[in-house]
Amino acid sequence: MHKSTRKRSEKAGLSPGTLIHVGERRTEKIKISILNYDKTNLDEKEAKTIEECFPFKDTPSVTWINIDGLHEIEIIEKLGNYFDLHPLLQEDILNTNQRPKMEDFENYIFFVLKMVYCCQTKGSTEIEQVSLILGSNFVISFQEREGDVFNSVRDRIRKNKGRIRKAGADYLAYSLLDAIVDNYFTVLENIGETIEDTEQKLATHPTPETVQVIHKLRREMISLRRSIWPLRELINNLEHSESKLIHESTDMYLRDVYDHTIQIIDTVESYRDMISGMMDIYLSSMSNKMNEVMKVLTIFASIFIPLTFITGIYGMNFEFMPELKWQGGYFTVLCLMAVVAISLVIYFKRKKWL
Amino acid sequence: MHKSTRKRSEKAGLSPGTLIHVGERRTEKIKISILNYDKTNLDEKEAKTIEECFPFKDTPSVTWINIDGLHEIEIIEKLGNYFDLHPLLQEDILNTNQRPKMEDFENYIFFVLKMVYCCQTKGSTEIEQVSLILGSNFVISFQEREGDVFNSVRDRIRKNKGRIRKAGADYLAYSLLDAIVDNYFTVLENIGETIEDTEQKLATHPTPETVQVIHKLRREMISLRRSIWPLRELINNLEHSESKLIHESTDMYLRDVYDHTIQIIDTVESYRDMISGMMDIYLSSMSNKMNEVMKVLTIFASIFIPLTFITGIYGMNFEFMPELKWQGGYFTVLCLMAVVAISLVIYFKRKKWL
Amino acid sequence: MHKSTRKRSEKAGLSPGTLIHVGERRTEKIKISILNYDKTNLDEKEAKTIEECFPFKDTPSVTWINIDGLHEIEIIEKLGNYFDLHPLLQEDILNTNQRPKMEDFENYIFFVLKMVYCCQTKGSTEIEQVSLILGSNFVISFQEREGDVFNSVRDRIRKNKGRIRKAGADYLAYSLLDAIVDNYFTVLENIGETIEDTEQKLATHPTPETVQVIHKLRREMISLRRSIWPLRELINNLEHSESKLIHESTDMYLRDVYDHTIQIIDTVESYRDMISGMMDIYLSSMSNKMNEVMKVLTIFASIFIPLTFITGIYGMNFEFMPELKWQGGYFTVLCLMAVVAISLVIYFKRKKWL
Amino acid sequence: MHKSTRKRSEKAGLSPGTLIHVGERRTEKIKISILNYDKTNLDEKEAKTIEECFPFKDTPSVTWINIDGLHEIEIIEKLGNYFDLHPLLQEDILNTNQRPKMEDFENYIFFVLKMVYCCQTKGSTEIEQVSLILGSNFVISFQEREGDVFNSVRDRIRKNKGRIRKAGADYLAYSLLDAIVDNYFTVLENIGETIEDTEQKLATHPTPETVQVIHKLRREMISLRRSIWPLRELINNLEHSESKLIHESTDMYLRDVYDHTIQIIDTVESYRDMISGMMDIYLSSMSNKMNEVMKVLTIFASIFIPLTFITGIYGMNFEFMPELKWQGGYFTVLCLMAVVAISLVIYFKRKKWL
Amino acid sequence: MHKSTRKRSEKAGLSPGTLIHVGERRTEKIKISILNYDKTNLDEKEAKTIEECFPFKDTPSVTWINIDGLHEIEIIEKLGNYFDLHPLLQEDILNTNQRPKMEDFENYIFFVLKMVYCCQTKGSTEIEQVSLILGSNFVISFQEREGDVFNSVRDRIRKNKGRIRKAGADYLAYSLLDAIVDNYFTVLENIGETIEDTEQKLATHPTPETVQVIHKLRREMISLRRSIWPLRELINNLEHSESKLIHESTDMYLRDVYDHTIQIIDTVESYRDMISGMMDIYLSSMSNKMNEVMKVLTIFASIFIPLTFITGIYGMNFEFMPELKWQGGYFTVLCLMAVVAISLVIYFKRKKWL
Repeated sequence: MHKSTRKRSEKAGLSPGTLIHVGERRTEKIKISILNYDKTNLDEKEAKTIEECFPFKDTPSVTWINIDGLHEIEIIEKLGNYFDLHPLLQEDILNTNQRPKMEDFENYIFFVLKMVYCCQTKGSTEIEQVSLILGSNFVISFQEREGDVFNSVRDRIRKNKGRIRKAGADYLAYSLLDAIVDNYFTVLENIGETIEDTEQKLATHPTPETVQVIHKLRREMISLRRSIWPLRELINNLEHSESKLIHESTDMYLRDVYDHTIQIIDTVESYRDMISGMMDIYLSSMSNKMNEVMKVLTIFASIFIPLTFITGIYGMNFEFMPELKWQGGYFTVLCLMAVVAISLVIYFKRKKWL
Repeated sequence: MHKSTRKRSEKAGLSPGTLIHVGERRTEKIKISILNYDKTNLDEKEAKTIEECFPFKDTPSVTWINIDGLHEIEIIEKLGNYFDLHPLLQEDILNTNQRPKMEDFENYIFFVLKMVYCCQTKGSTEIEQVSLILGSNFVISFQEREGDVFNSVRDRIRKNKGRIRKAGADYLAYSLLDAIVDNYFTVLENIGETIEDTEQKLATHPTPETVQVIHKLRREMISLRRSIWPLRELINNLEHSESKLIHESTDMYLRDVYDHTIQIIDTVESYRDMISGMMDIYLSSMSNKMNEVMKVLTIFASIFIPLTFITGIYGMNFEFMPELKWQGGYFTVLCLMAVVAISLVIYFKRKKWL
Repeated sequence: MHKSTRKRSEKAGLSPGTLIHVGERRTEKIKISILNYDKTNLDEKEAKTIEECFPFKDTPSVTWINIDGLHEIEIIEKLGNYFDLHPLLQEDILNTNQRPKMEDFENYIFFVLKMVYCCQTKGSTEIEQVSLILGSNFVISFQEREGDVFNSVRDRIRKNKGRIRKAGADYLAYSLLDAIVDNYFTVLENIGETIEDTEQKLATHPTPETVQVIHKLRREMISLRRSIWPLRELINNLEHSESKLIHESTDMYLRDVYDHTIQIIDTVESYRDMISGMMDIYLSSMSNKMNEVMKVLTIFASIFIPLTFITGIYGMNFEFMPELKWQGGYFTVLCLMAVVAISLVIYFKRKKWL
Repeated sequence: MHKSTRKRSEKAGLSPGTLIHVGERRTEKIKISILNYDKTNLDEKEAKTIEECFPFKDTPSVTWINIDGLHEIEIIEKLGNYFDLHPLLQEDILNTNQRPKMEDFENYIFFVLKMVYCCQTKGSTEIEQVSLILGSNFVISFQEREGDVFNSVRDRIRKNKGRIRKAGADYLAYSLLDAIVDNYFTVLENIGETIEDTEQKLATHPTPETVQVIHKLRREMISLRRSIWPLRELINNLEHSESKLIHESTDMYLRDVYDHTIQIIDTVESYRDMISGMMDIYLSSMSNKMNEVMKVLTIFASIFIPLTFITGIYGMNFEFMPELKWQGGYFTVLCLMAVVAISLVIYFKRKKWL
Repeated sequence: MHKSTRKRSEKAGLSPGTLIHVGERRTEKIKISILNYDKTNLDEKEAKTIEECFPFKDTPSVTWINIDGLHEIEIIEKLGNYFDLHPLLQEDILNTNQRPKMEDFENYIFFVLKMVYCCQTKGSTEIEQVSLILGSNFVISFQEREGDVFNSVRDRIRKNKGRIRKAGADYLAYSLLDAIVDNYFTVLENIGETIEDTEQKLATHPTPETVQVIHKLRREMISLRRSIWPLRELINNLEHSESKLIHESTDMYLRDVYDHTIQIIDTVESYRDMISGMMDIYLSSMSNKMNEVMKVLTIFASIFIPLTFITGIYGMNFEFMPELKWQGGYFTVLCLMAVVAISLVIYFKRKKWL
């Protein structure tokens, strides 16, 4: 078994609703975990087959089914068919190039969004697609690979912290959204630090590598924007949706997470401004350096060229050159050269080049 | 018979509704193919004269008439008159500089849009105009030349894959739209790869040709934008149109293809950002190179000019130059020059030029 | 009689409605031509005095009064008073710095717009103001000078081509609008060719004149934008106006000409993008050239400066320089110089400067 | 008595409605002039105390009270209290950093706007704040200093030209607005001429001073935009206000002046585009010049450096240099140098540097 | 006890409503001050425990509770619980990375905003978060540290200046908002002066440090924009809110402060334009300088290199060089060199390089 990436274009020409996994395969094995809870009870298990999830469709308690890994199409298909998920929706789950969006199918709400995290080994920002299905008493989440972003939610359920065990499936969906949005802050803080570092480097000793860093930052901003702007729209739609699946008491929390996305957008836009300013500084420092180099060359050349010319004159082999015979000729010429050199130095001082 | 391009300006001053083919003639012969189907039957044939299409106007089964090549005006005219198409509409079909748009004539919906594909021989993106007419039980499509974008739809009809044979003419029109939109992804993936390649080249060894590539990419983005933004509007209008020609069940699919156009727009905008960033990197790498060149020149000149000056002094022919008589004079001067050279080297090291 | 330009500022402080001609006087004599027609009859004549137009105010047939030249204020005034035109409207006709706009006075609709054409003698784009007044059965048009843009409409009326003789004054007004808008395409095609040419020149041998061409193109785009954006608005207002002067059957044609303005705007915006990209290419090619020049200088200087230094050493006149006495000294030094030169060449090859 | 400028920050912390003059004091003495008129009568006088204005509050004829100079707070206060002006409004009159705006207090309409004029002594554009209060039968105007912009209106009243004496206070207010807006055209024409001049200079011989001119133009555009955009909004609000103080017959004139502001905005935006293009041209001409300089240096250095090297060789003092003994050695070397020089010249010709 | 900064990311994964202080701890001790007043009475005290504030919840007089310092979570919690503040609101008070916003909870209105002031010791602009809670008869304000921005309001209450003692809690909240907004003007005036200074420096002698100043200004503009744009929205919402907590008479004042925010935004945007223009000037002055340097080098090198070549020729040691034997040879050569030098000087004069 090996990692493989399928492109979006491989889908071109297929019948709509045809299930095909688009994107990089990021995990070896698909992992299905089930968390069933109400105010008093908690039941957690890892399912071996997707069929184990089916009984939870109609239990009164809240169930969270989390699926890590998307490459086994049959699993999604079986689940989709049992839970009555629309074929186009199933297609969207498997296509990891989706734009974040929300769709309200009467019995459930579907949303696709992007989760970001800092890849510590590569030192860059990774983006992963997460799909959520919110039913009346269940939430199904699909991730591209096992991650630790949802662990905090899992912990709160296990330890019965806060409102989560008392509230319904919509609050669980909100908590997952909130966990994902919170992770954007972490990523932005990392980027903010890189920006600070790079600005300091620019002020002290910019190198061509700095341009690469600036370009990388710029690209990260581009992909963050592509993830966060539609996410804001998604949450706004969710907040204003009239679906009966979202209780009124959850609206307050959705508004809170909406505020967070706006804050993230603000930060992203500010960072973009800063990064484009950094490029300007880099270019101006380059032209300063060039100026510096040119000045050194000009000073050296301009002082020594006339002096060398003088030595050239008295290096000529004419038979009749009266100066050559003078006893003090040599010293006179040395003095002359000193005078020339000193006047040039004064000239350059006046031009503030020295 | 030869290829010929007519310009838009040749139409200036003509009466509106006058039929004239504007654009490059891209095919030798006009090809008319008819595909008539319902759930159970399939009838496929190539028509020799346009009159063969006429009986299909009122059959209960779905008919797809596809016309490749636009330069024979009479064909369009005869078809147009038989199918009651508005003269301005006929004019629009023939003018291949149309902006993508949709118009709802009660008995049929007309839409013009742009199809993109990668021309493998030229290695660049080609844009072709496609017009579609959706009637109650027929779809007429006009292409500038034979292409393979619609083959996948043809195949699905032939093999009765998916919903297509069960659904009406509106689903067929949707399928053609979807096939066209899917092709944008393929083109964008190609462009994305060129961008990746160019970025790597920029980081390692940028050449003046890279600017040409960047400029070509930029131009392609400009023409893609011109095609895709109005296409998004078109599909949006289609989805929200109240025409009875679009069944409610197709709306879901139109929303899906609408999502795709938004995703394409997102990608195009991101690529634009990246491309403009690439130009910055190119310019900064140019100024780095210049700096590099200048430094080499400055170091060479600044070290050797003073040394040459010293040799010039002792090359003068004065009769009274005490140093020339000293036995160790030559070696002293050589040492002096070594000292000068070494101090300059140290100076440049301090300036981090070496 | 001489050409004269009056400035807008000369109007400052005058009472509103005061008639004064603002702009360049572009023609010697004012020419008034009258075209009166219905389905069967056609009456064409050139009027010597403005009073000859008055009888046509209330005839049932359609009358087109065209006035070339705006500098004789009394003509406009007499006409205006007879046809009950608002004083501010008369002022607008005479002020050739108007922004394109439409105003609906119950009994007539007034629109000012800009006509563009390529001045073949100067090779640049000229902009001229055209005012149209659409009454129930007449159209009055004001041009700054005699032009050939309306000739095609005149021809269609004379030869009774298309719908024009059967339709009313509103269709005539539309035809004039359409003729003006069509001319934008011609101008844009010319500009498009200049852009193509300039791009090729940029790729092969850019000169400082190219910058002037780019700047001229940019200025033309600025003035085209100023003409076409409000024109689009004007036509949109016309299409959606509820004036009884516009028959419903003309709406379809107005929508068509509206589509054309959007297409022109699209083209203008694309050209703007291309032109700004061209400036970037020019600058990058400049910096390439500079690099090239610098490299040549650096290679020459860096190879010969050390060699000249060596010759300098052995040109010194010290009495005790053992090498000078060696029989093979000269050839050894020549070899040494060859070695230095070759190593430097290799060094520059490695740096890819050669 | 001396000129003094108060800053906006001095107001920080004061109770709202506290009267304090913010801005430069531009006149020595406050001048109050009263103009009372109806169709038949005209009464003009200069008031010594503000109390002289009070009787005009309720006369049936139209009264225009104009106050030049804002530094005597008591005058504003007394007037404000007698005419029932809101304290915040009084504060706004005195704060000359206001953004143009309109406020509708039932019994009167208040508007603040910016008047521009070319300061002939300084050669730059000056901006002054004007406040207008439109009551049922009076207009009060506040200027920072005596100016001649309103003289044309005064003249029209005195000479009973146009509609002004027949119309009410709202037409007077419109006339003042119109006079102010007309002045923008004058300023823009001046700026337009400077732009033309600067463009020509850029094309022929750009100097560093040109950048200063461009920068000054850019700053003027920034401040014009800040004045004109809110002015447009103001006039739009005025036109659509439902205040009974504005008669319906004046609406037409307000629309006219609104069209003028849009035209001004159009011109300002075009000028901004042109100015930013000029900076590009300047930079490209700079880099052309640099190229030119570099080429001269390179040609000189590259031709003479090899020649000097050859002379260096034969200036060496080796005892065994066979060439030195040849009779034709000198001429051979001269020929060699000529060959080298000519080949280099040909090389540079090929590179198009000569 | 030491200063500590907590990051936003530390909140990731916590249950919503969990209280945690995010941001820098800016004060050692929390200070609670209470100001209770009505038309006639005034009661001012500093509370030692938060419980001392509780009795003021329901008094008929207006109470202003001001809390400086946010790091003691229990204080906020106790206060929040007693005054029935929503847990998410309490969380927002403690998170100093909030975006300015307003939330209307029926019994109270909550707003978070940013206060700016010039830090005199550091010479830069500082931003601090302020939260306000407006109840029916109380205002609670939270600041990050003791500041003097609210002192003017405190003074007006103490000295019974203006409307403040007569009006209700909403007017107090407005006064605090107004004090904060007024401070923006002070900060902007400081920045304006720095811009003026920097522009003058750019015109006379730009240094690399100037770029750092420009970059700092740009960053300050970015953060000011992030504070002021949402503040404008906040005040707009407040003005149009239908909360019964805002009396109608206060609306006028809110509109006034809204106008101020628009004026601030205008200024910020103008400054942004100016700052970006300054960078252009800097770059163009850099390239001027480079040109200058290059010219000096080119003139020196181009004049002396040919002269030195001539001396080289006559420094050659050929035995047969007729010129060397001529008596006037030396002076002829000197003259020749003078001629060469003078022609070059004339050449450079013609090129306007001298």
